[in-house]
Amino acid sequence: MEKSALQIARAAYQPKLPLALRGALNAVEGEPTQSVADQEEVEKLFPNTYGMPYLRFEPVDGEMKTQQMNVGVILSGGQAPGGHNVISGLFDGIKKLNPANKLYGFILGPSGLVEHNYMELTAEIVDEYRNTGGFDIIGSGRTKLEKKDQFDKGLEILKALDIKALVIIGGDDSNTNACVLAEYYKAIDAGVQVIGCPKTIDGDLKNSEIETSFGFDTATKVYSEVIGNIMRDCNSAKKYWHFVKLMGRSASHVTLECALQTHPNITLIGEEVEAKNQTLDDVVTYIADAVADRATRGMNYGVVLVPEGLIEFIPAIKKLIAELNDMLAANQADFDLVADDNKISYVLKHLSDENAAIFKSLPLSVSRQLALERDPHGNVQVSLIETEQLLAEMVGKKLAEWKKEGLFNGKFSTQHHFFGYEGRCAAPSNFDADYCYSLGFNASMLIAAGKTGYMSSVKNTSKPVDEWIAGGIPITMMMNMEKRNGEMKPVIRKALVELDGNPYKYFVCHRTKWARETDFIYPGPIQYFGPAEVCDQPTKTLTLEHE
Amino acid sequence: MEKSALQIARAAYQPKLPLALRGALNAVEGEPTQSVADQEEVEKLFPNTYGMPYLRFEPVDGEMKTQQMNVGVILSGGQAPGGHNVISGLFDGIKKLNPANKLYGFILGPSGLVEHNYMELTAEIVDEYRNTGGFDIIGSGRTKLEKKDQFDKGLEILKALDIKALVIIGGDDSNTNACVLAEYYKAIDAGVQVIGCPKTIDGDLKNSEIETSFGFDTATKVYSEVIGNIMRDCNSAKKYWHFVKLMGRSASHVTLECALQTHPNITLIGEEVEAKNQTLDDVVTYIADAVADRATRGMNYGVVLVPEGLIEFIPAIKKLIAELNDMLAANQADFDLVADDNKISYVLKHLSDENAAIFKSLPLSVSRQLALERDPHGNVQVSLIETEQLLAEMVGKKLAEWKKEGLFNGKFSTQHHFFGYEGRCAAPSNFDADYCYSLGFNASMLIAAGKTGYMSSVKNTSKPVDEWIAGGIPITMMMNMEKRNGEMKPVIRKALVELDGNPYKYFVCHRTKWARETDFIYPGPIQYFGPAEVCDQPTKTLTLEHE
Repeated sequence: MEKSALQIARAAYQPKLPLALRGALNAVEGEPTQSVADQEEVEKLFPNTYGMPYLRFEPVDGEMKTQQMNVGVILSGGQAPGGHNVISGLFDGIKKLNPANKLYGFILGPSGLVEHNYMELTAEIVDEYRNTGGFDIIGSGRTKLEKKDQFDKGLEILKALDIKALVIIGGDDSNTNACVLAEYYKAIDAGVQVIGCPKTIDGDLKNSEIETSFGFDTATKVYSEVIGNIMRDCNSAKKYWHFVKLMGRSASHVTLECALQTHPNITLIGEEVEAKNQTLDDVVTYIADAVADRATRGMNYGVVLVPEGLIEFIPAIKKLIAELNDMLAANQADFDLVADDNKISYVLKHLSDENAAIFKSLPLSVSRQLALERDPHGNVQVSLIETEQLLAEMVGKKLAEWKKEGLFNGKFSTQHHFFGYEGRCAAPSNFDADYCYSLGFNASMLIAAGKTGYMSSVKNTSKPVDEWIAGGIPITMMMNMEKRNGEMKPVIRKALVELDGNPYKYFVCHRTKWARETDFIYPGPIQYFGPAEVCDQPTKTLTLEHE
Repeated sequence: MEKSALQIARAAYQPKLPLALRGALNAVEGEPTQSVADQEEVEKLFPNTYGMPYLRFEPVDGEMKTQQMNVGVILSGGQAPGGHNVISGLFDGIKKLNPANKLYGFILGPSGLVEHNYMELTAEIVDEYRNTGGFDIIGSGRTKLEKKDQFDKGLEILKALDIKALVIIGGDDSNTNACVLAEYYKAIDAGVQVIGCPKTIDGDLKNSEIETSFGFDTATKVYSEVIGNIMRDCNSAKKYWHFVKLMGRSASHVTLECALQTHPNITLIGEEVEAKNQTLDDVVTYIADAVADRATRGMNYGVVLVPEGLIEFIPAIKKLIAELNDMLAANQADFDLVADDNKISYVLKHLSDENAAIFKSLPLSVSRQLALERDPHGNVQVSLIETEQLLAEMVGKKLAEWKKEGLFNGKFSTQHHFFGYEGRCAAPSNFDADYCYSLGFNASMLIAAGKTGYMSSVKNTSKPVDEWIAGGIPITMMMNMEKRNGEMKPVIRKALVELDGNPYKYFVCHRTKWARETDFIYPGPIQYFGPAEVCDQPTKTLTLEHE
């Protein structure tokens, strides 16, 4: 494949490893762990992998050599910058342990394991992908590894390839499944270890031991680059309000981080909207107020950041969606026969009065979206709502009313943008290149130490790489019981934006100033070769969390 | 203002100047010039500035010193990366000529001149903006300088500030107006020179003497960065067709350049669509064919690049729009009274049969757009049509038909994106930083040489900066007569994509391969500090044009 000049130059970058991973090491056990909640239920479901201790690798003299072994790797779920470096770190790690070791990649995600679709990842192949973005080395997919027959089918190929350990690179769901798989293989004494790696640009897989999921750093820097460019345009033309939606359905970390990097005039944080029990009208009024205030000082322009999941964070709409899903499931056959033109009135008739009133208050484009478009599971497709356009439109209507009442004298023209795919496959920043390589290399050491049901953990990442701490954390430690499709299930608890956390508090301290003034920051594109203060900074979120 | 680490580091960059501009210089006159067409008419309209010779600056021994003078500068039209460097080059140039010289900036575009809204650009201010994107140092605007009373009003403030020369940084329209202004001031012996600078990310202001307009390099690199990221995602997930619309209403240079940088599966070039007299259905069929072909080889994914102006390049639609505008202008009062629901049928009744048939064939969302939304001049708003969504939708419909007929067996899921504001205010690439600084510095030398009606010209830009050639080109040379609002006007001829030019021919040679295979290139973000092969490359367009 033809490569860009940057790809070629960047291929030569040697990611840095924490000191402990540079030579021989010893796995030092810490205290036994407990799940973050529901300890009794989680323990019952994971009798073989519950309560294991923290692990920390410490350097020792000597050499690390193991018996020959084969390792498998899976990329699961949405892309995140640095996945290729996890694989190259893992590859280099197992080759260091024994040059005869082999790495197999399962193709297009977990389905590759179940369908026995795989390839050997040789040095030649791995070298093509070092420090690059994307998951294209083996592809990714969203098949969920959840069922016994999938596990058994997977075991066939693992045995056939003599694979001793499987590394699953994924988000909270994929790591939950990795843990269930580890437990199952241990229970049946299959002789296959399972190790997880924390991936997601959304940043919602983190806790005391996993400081950040990989890809968050790079993706938020790409989004901040283009947001900064839009801000500079906004501040040059002085005629538009730009509404920018950012990926992140379940948590608003991406939006918060981009706000900390760029200082937009208005930033919506889903977790706050939920905690304050705000309505859609509250949110619209909040924006309109800020627009009107700037207009009084002649500033008919600004930038608004909106998290993708905003709509679902609004408690009243969350309730409405839940009832909609239940009602449509109960009346599916009936509803399918209703003509499209009558679907909205059918919905209104079958909802509780409270939710019917909310449904009625939505703009037609949204209620139509909710009534007409459903995903393969029959659920309404909240993610298809173009929140950034919806808000711009509703704010415009409110300001038009205010204008009639003499409460607003400015102009309000809008542009809207949605950034997601632009950042998920960017070439990893130095931080993500180092972090991912370390996570992968570290995973090989967890395998060598005979561990299963662990997640690769690299900590102290707000410091220089030399000071990073490598080790493992039992995945069960992150679990609690949650309702999924009507059933209580053990799952890794999602990390939402904490309203008493430093990043959010910093934002709250400054947002009034950012709204009133034009205090934009223009981060520019990720730099790989320049001075350290430009190239080697972690996210603001990570820095503030560890201050 | 708080600055990002990159802004701070980048502020220290000293843009490079062509050799001829580094010391004292001499303006060498070339041949007298002719306008590119309609010589007689253009000459009649520009009796004082027509036919002037090319100028080329050559280094001489000695020092350049001039009498004290003041200079004014205007940023006109849409933002383009490097505008601040034109200003800093101009500033450094006039200060070198005489440290007592002063630079005044007119605020928010040409209206600043007419409304006497200005500020002095001191060293302290200029230093804050070196090598940064945006036009926020003085803002920009779209007021057209066309009328005598504007010129006279402007002259008042130019005289009051003792300004000897005005530099207008703009696109083809703004430079046309700069030329009219130069002619007028010369005709009335106002004692004010006018110099133009070629700006536009669209790349459509170029000719034998102006090799590229500034900003094109940086903007296309930013777009190529995010397109490359989307491609990598596309090739990892292997499940979407991404439709990407790019800025450029009048010409498809941006789309072509991004295609050369990234190798998308399908690229539409408006100029080709027009030359081949294609219909919207032809374009849709062309895309659907490529999608269906990839599907036969299991590739249900790809990337399509679409220029913003595509719709207007389709001859049948162009005719329809022309008739629509005329018809609506003729029936305005009548039409305004028609209820929104009846506007489409009103339009159908009042169009010629041929255009009514075209209008009827458009998707409802588009015909509604054309009938309902009009700009302040009463024209239909073609630019509001979301071409990328429209094409995705129409291709989907066609493929669904083909599926029924057994002609298509793949899947077709789409995502769409529009990139414009993301690139217009990016921090200039090394190329644009140097080119813009040189254009600005060079403008100061044209002023010192007493010239008016010239555009600042820096050539040989596909070579290293040392070999760049600096000089001036009479703006009248670029002109021809075109119909504008029913009247023949002298205007700078827009440079469209040439179907016999090297960049297009290179694209045509490779596009079949790019469509069939997955040959994506991932350029990554603009680098400012790395190796020259990464940081200092001009665009593919420029390179191919000068091969």
